[in-house]
This record gives sequence, structure tokens and C-alpha cells, in this order.
Amino acid sequence: MNATLTLEQQVIKSIVRRARAAAHRLGTLPDKIRRDALNTAADALLSRKAEILSANVLDTRAAMDLVQQHRLSSASIARLKTTEQTILDMVLRVRTVAALPDPIGSVLEATELDRGLRLYRVSCPIGVIAVVFESRPDVIPQIASLTLRAGNVVIFKGGREAAHTNWVLNRIWCDALAEFPEIPPNTVNLLKTRDEVAALLDLEEGIDLVIPRGSKEFVRHISSKTRFPVLGHGEGVCHVYVDRSANLAKALDIAFDSKVQYPAACNSMETLLVHRDVATTFLPDIVNRFLAANVEMRGCTETIALIADKEIVLASEEDWSTEYSELIVSIRIVDNDTQAIEHIQRYGSGHTEAIVTEDHHVAQRFTDSIDAAGVYVNASTRFADGYRYGMGAELGISTGKLHARGPVGLQGLTSYKYKLFGDGHTVASYTSGERQFKHRRL
Amino acid sequence: MNATLTLEQQVIKSIVRRARAAAHRLGTLPDKIRRDALNTAADALLSRKAEILSANVLDTRAAMDLVQQHRLSSASIARLKTTEQTILDMVLRVRTVAALPDPIGSVLEATELDRGLRLYRVSCPIGVIAVVFESRPDVIPQIASLTLRAGNVVIFKGGREAAHTNWVLNRIWCDALAEFPEIPPNTVNLLKTRDEVAALLDLEEGIDLVIPRGSKEFVRHISSKTRFPVLGHGEGVCHVYVDRSANLAKALDIAFDSKVQYPAACNSMETLLVHRDVATTFLPDIVNRFLAANVEMRGCTETIALIADKEIVLASEEDWSTEYSELIVSIRIVDNDTQAIEHIQRYGSGHTEAIVTEDHHVAQRFTDSIDAAGVYVNASTRFADGYRYGMGAELGISTGKLHARGPVGLQGLTSYKYKLFGDGHTVASYTSGERQFKHRRL
Repeated sequence: MNATLTLEQQVIKSIVRRARAAAHRLGTLPDKIRRDALNTAADALLSRKAEILSANVLDTRAAMDLVQQHRLSSASIARLKTTEQTILDMVLRVRTVAALPDPIGSVLEATELDRGLRLYRVSCPIGVIAVVFESRPDVIPQIASLTLRAGNVVIFKGGREAAHTNWVLNRIWCDALAEFPEIPPNTVNLLKTRDEVAALLDLEEGIDLVIPRGSKEFVRHISSKTRFPVLGHGEGVCHVYVDRSANLAKALDIAFDSKVQYPAACNSMETLLVHRDVATTFLPDIVNRFLAANVEMRGCTETIALIADKEIVLASEEDWSTEYSELIVSIRIVDNDTQAIEHIQRYGSGHTEAIVTEDHHVAQRFTDSIDAAGVYVNASTRFADGYRYGMGAELGISTGKLHARGPVGLQGLTSYKYKLFGDGHTVASYTSGERQFKHRRL
Repeated sequence: MNATLTLEQQVIKSIVRRARAAAHRLGTLPDKIRRDALNTAADALLSRKAEILSANVLDTRAAMDLVQQHRLSSASIARLKTTEQTILDMVLRVRTVAALPDPIGSVLEATELDRGLRLYRVSCPIGVIAVVFESRPDVIPQIASLTLRAGNVVIFKGGREAAHTNWVLNRIWCDALAEFPEIPPNTVNLLKTRDEVAALLDLEEGIDLVIPRGSKEFVRHISSKTRFPVLGHGEGVCHVYVDRSANLAKALDIAFDSKVQYPAACNSMETLLVHRDVATTFLPDIVNRFLAANVEMRGCTETIALIADKEIVLASEEDWSTEYSELIVSIRIVDNDTQAIEHIQRYGSGHTEAIVTEDHHVAQRFTDSIDAAGVYVNASTRFADGYRYGMGAELGISTGKLHARGPVGLQGLTSYKYKLFGDGHTVASYTSGERQFKHRRL
């Protein structure tokens, strides 16, 4: 043992070394084994649900003590709590991922470079993925199924509040995989302590991707602690713009759904933009619907002047770039779609932006001009979600523009390699002019 | 002006703000304008070649003084020197990029989520890309054509040695783009000082991607200075493995080409692995060819024992992971393909790995097991190159596994967005069970 390493560093080095070895083997496993293993894991979650529920009782009780001591919010109990229904949901999601088409080994591109020299771009696993998450224990089956489906090894570190539940879920998962001799041990790993995750994030090499799941502060914290690439859930300052040509019945439904259906989600609307020409007809109606749903409103001066009889406070400059994540909405009247686009370009976080319009040209201008992971026409921002997009499940929604953007599913867990098949081909024969490239798409 | 900002920080903030505004407009330009602009820029390079050559004389003279003072290597003169032929090559590359299919606006995936609710994943530009490069002035036309073809704004910072040539190339390029009123100014930008690039790398936001072009130390240096995503050319410790079933004539050509054709390239071979069963027949021949080409050889003990009459030094442990980038090769005899794969997994840098074999199963095992950007069967490692792959040009070769892997061309300069078209659809009607998702691939 190296005397200069702490105990945690030694543990982590050993875990990562074995994880890398597992990744080398996992990348070559046939689809059927990965799929069967997921279905076996789903069965195990169901048949061992009593163990999950007992462990969760321990976690929930400890958490309730912390809530009474005001050291934990009562909302975290709701996130932590696992029920029979939660387990059924977990099982369903694992089976859904098992049923998705194999993301590995797809030929993404094929080119004949020259006679007898063929190039294939083929999807492959990324390798070893570290997932650091806060309390929700359903993260383990959800992400373990996505990572295994795409041939990756995963190293989890969960929140302390869910330690018992996470331990049991990981145990059930590893036991299920152990029924398959082809699947290497250490395909799924669970770290125990904060010092271990700190040692992992501090490594020079060995981890291909870090996925933090939690608040934006949590994502930022993890990103600042590591040299590895981080794929983090992005902040959502999403807008709905109601154009002059909007069908106002649709606009009412879309604005209401975008704000009220689940305001804590990153894809819920924070700011409503309304074209001046429809403000007098549309605003009173949506304000009434928002009031009935206890939505607090903060408006521009014109909005307040227009809705003088209702309680709307003046929006500050800060309001326009705030992700409320609760039943608060800011409202601004704009002159035209250009001003709406400029507002979104300035204050939006590049997550999901919607326009309500019946004008095809305005819709096209909006979707082309707005630089966001999702640009929607006549649909609620709340559709930004891996399950709703048909990905089966998601790792999170990325507002970054590299690798994966928007809801990240199986595809975001793959890379690709170029396979080149020749017959003794050398580059010298091309530089000498003896041979020429064809570059024919196959 | 903000008193707490340095002059460079003020300059950079202003450049980046205008670059972002340009990116918003550039992303919506039709293909024809971007293509025509590139052909106009190519014409301008040709018609203003005298200006380029005069500027380059200034740079080369200053560099020769530095060489005489031993403050610059003579190899850098070769990289710096621009001739009529270099300009013709630049022009040809710009025209090649102009002729490539539009990488923007492609529908990568289309799904009907439900009746009247259609989701499209559409390729789009990344945004603002900073390119920091060492002396070669041909970087400006090559990368400016790739970035514009993909609808991106670029901010260059070149090496001081090529300052005059870079200035003229940038001037010609901007003048050519100025003939197109649709193309925003600040589409191509050139920074002047190191302090400016330091201020840019230190920004909190505004740059979508940083591309360093230069040595691996340079790439590492740039990466350590910025929070922005970096797409860097990777180190190349590439192998050729000659299997027992290899056609030895092909093996000779491939091993020789991989090492000798251009040893300074990252895709040249550093280590030759030879199956024990063919070592006695193959090694004497390749050793003779290497000796004739002045290749220095470092072998394992068995290699040295086998080639006792020739000058081969014993390879140290360090040799196996060294990117020589010159006419040096390390040679190891292995027991079988498993040992070859293990050697490559341990010492390879994930760049390009080749096997010479006539055995289909061994070839498949090799290409499936090796985790590298390129895995080749019976072809020289030197084929790892954007031009040879049919990409027209490349930004570099990535050994990272996220976003773009291997030679990075136009596709690596794009992101995507999800466009969703509905008819007033809300998520509440799906969670209530009133409607169900179809998820039908279109």
C-alpha cells in the first residue's frame, strides 16, 4: 500500500481499478444478457420489496427526528419515502429500459474510403460513470438500468438520509446481476462516505463521466470539485410567449399547465410573455386562473396597469432571471415576437421555451432563433422530459450544448468508435498519388 | 465602464457580447449564404495572396532572428512559412468545406408523441467557439471555414510568431464576409494579446467551447485555465498488433507506414506488438526495414534475444506509455491476442489501435474489446484523420469519449435542439389519464 494515500484514496483507487476492468468486459456483452439482467433485477425488486420497505422505515424515522429538530425540511421526507407504489413504479421503469432497443453497436455512419477500405462509426459504452445524488432512493434502479443497458459501469454515492434504502437497493441489484456469470462483479458500486466521493472526484483518471443529481447548487459544487466531465441537470428559466395570432383558449391551457401542473420541475414556466395586441383579452382570463390556483404574480408596469383590480406586485429586474420553482410567475407585455425573442435570449437559461401562435412564419422564426434545448409551438413546457419524449427514462435535462442536450436518455450514455477495415492499406500510397480516396457513403 | 475590470477584461466582455449577438443571427442564416461566403473568402485568399506572403515574410524574418538567438526551434520556421503552395492548399480546403452538405437543420430523429404532437431533434450550431493555437497560420482559414459552415462564431488567438500573417488572413476573411449583408460583423474575431486570451478563458459565461490547437502541454495548460468545455487534441500512444494469422506482407507495410510515413503525427505507431508464433519470421524483416529508415528500436527482452545481431536497446517500463513522435519504436512479443489487448488497454491512450490478422473472429474480438477512438483491421494507424475519413477537414482528433471522438469535423461543431409542435397540448391531460402517449418513430 502506498503510504502517502489516505485510506479513502486507497479504497477508491481499488474500486475504480476494478470498475475499469468490469467496463472492459461489459462493453462486449451481447444485448440479450444486458436485457435479461434488467428484467431479473426488476423481478428481484418486486420479490424483495419487504426488505426495501423495512430499510426505508429506518431512514424515514431517522429523517423525521431530524425534521423535528429542524435540521431537515419536511419536503425531504416526501422525497425519501418509499411505498409499495414507489416500488411498482421502479419495477415498471426498469422493465421499460430493458425493452428499449440496444443503444450499443449501432452503425451510425458507414463510408467506403477506397476499394477494400471501409469505415464504420459504431456506438459503444462510455465506460465508468459516477452518479452522485441527493436523497431520492429511486435513483439507484432508474440509473443502474440506464447505465447497464448502455454497457456502462456505475459508481453511486447517495445521500446519507437514504443510506439504508440505498444499501438494500444496491444489494438487490448486485445479487440479481450475480445470477449472470458473464456480467462482471463491480458493474454496480455504492460508495459509503463523503470522504470516498471526495477522493473519487479528486482522481486524475479513471472516471469517464460524473453525473450529479440534485439542486443547482449541488451540481455546481460537484462540478467545481473534479477534472472529469460533468453532465449536470441545468437550471430552468422557461418562458411561454403568447403571440398576437395565438388561439387564446390554447394559450390559457398551455400557460396554466406550464406553471401550475408541477411548479417544482425545472421545465415549468417562470415568465409569461404576452403580445400587446392580445393582452387586454388574454391577461384578465389567465390572471383569474392563476389566482384560483394560488399563483403569486409579478408583472411589468403595463401588466399592473392593465390588471389594476388584482393583486400583482411589480417585477424587479431580478425576477426576470429567477427560477422560482414554486407557484410564482412573472408577466411581461411585449411589442412583438422580436421583443419576446430578445427577452428570452437575455433572461432564459436555454432549457425550454414555448410560443403559442397560429402563424406559421412566426412559429418558424421563434424555433429557429431561440437557442434552447427545447423550442415548442403550441405545447406546454412541461413536456420536456425523457419519459414524455419516448426515451423510457432520463438521467436529467442538460442545458449544455455539448454531447447531450435536453432530456438525456440511453443515447447520452453512449460514445462511439471508428472501426476501419482494410486489406493492408497504407497512407503512403495515397500521399504518393498511387491511390485516391473515394469517400462513398454506404 | 466598470472600474473593477482591467482594460483586457473590458475589451473581452465587449467582444464576447458582440460575438453572442452575432451567433444568434448566424444560427438562422440559410445554407446558401454560408456556402457562398466561404467561396468568396477562398477567392479573396487567392486574389490577395501578395498581402499574405508579405506579412509572412515579416513573421519569418523575425522568427529567423529568434532561431539564431536560440530562442525558437528551426522546426517552427517550417510551420510558420507560408508559400504560394500553402495558400493554394488553404483555398482548396476552404472550397472543400463549402462543398460539404449543410450540417445545420438536419432532422436527426422524429417522433409522434401523440396525435398532433410531433417532436423533432434538429442539428443546430453550438454558438461561440474560442480557438487558441500555436504558430501555424493555416489554422485561421481552415477553422474559420468549419465554424462558419456550421453556423458558429469564432474567436481566434494565434501565436505571437505568426502575428502579421494571422492579422492579414483575418482581415481578408472579414472583408470577404462583409460582402454579405446578412452575415453579422464579429462572426470571426482575432484577439491580440495573451492578457486578452487569459481574460476570455477566465470568464464565467459567454463561450460555448474552447479548442486549443498545439502540443499536449499546451492543451493541458488551456484546460486548466477555464471553466468552459474544452475539446482538445489527445495524446496518441498507438499500437499495431501483428497476430499469428497475419498476412506478413500486409503486416510489414502497415507497421512501416504507421511508424515512418509521418512520425510526428499523433496517429503514428509507438509500439509494435507481435504474436510469438510469427515473431521469428516477421521481426527480422521489419527490423531491417526500420533500420533502413533510421528508426531507433527499443525491445522487450525476447525481442532483443531474437534479433541478437542488431542494435536494439531494452525498452524500459516508461517506453510502453511514451508518445515518441519521432523515429523511435518499442517492440514487444506477446503470447496471444488477449495479451495484446491487455497491453493496449494498459498503455494505450485511446487514440488509434490496429490489428493485422486474417482471422475474422480475432479481428472482431479486437475491435469490440479495445476502447479507442479508432480500432483498425489490416490498415495503417495513419488513416486516423478528418480528411481521410471524408470529413473535408478536421479540428483535431479527440480521445475524449463525450461529444465528439476521433477526428472532429463539422458534426463536432454542431449541437441539437428539440422542436416540439403541438395544438394546445398540456401535460395534465396525460397525467390524468385522459390521453396516452403513442411514441411512434416518424
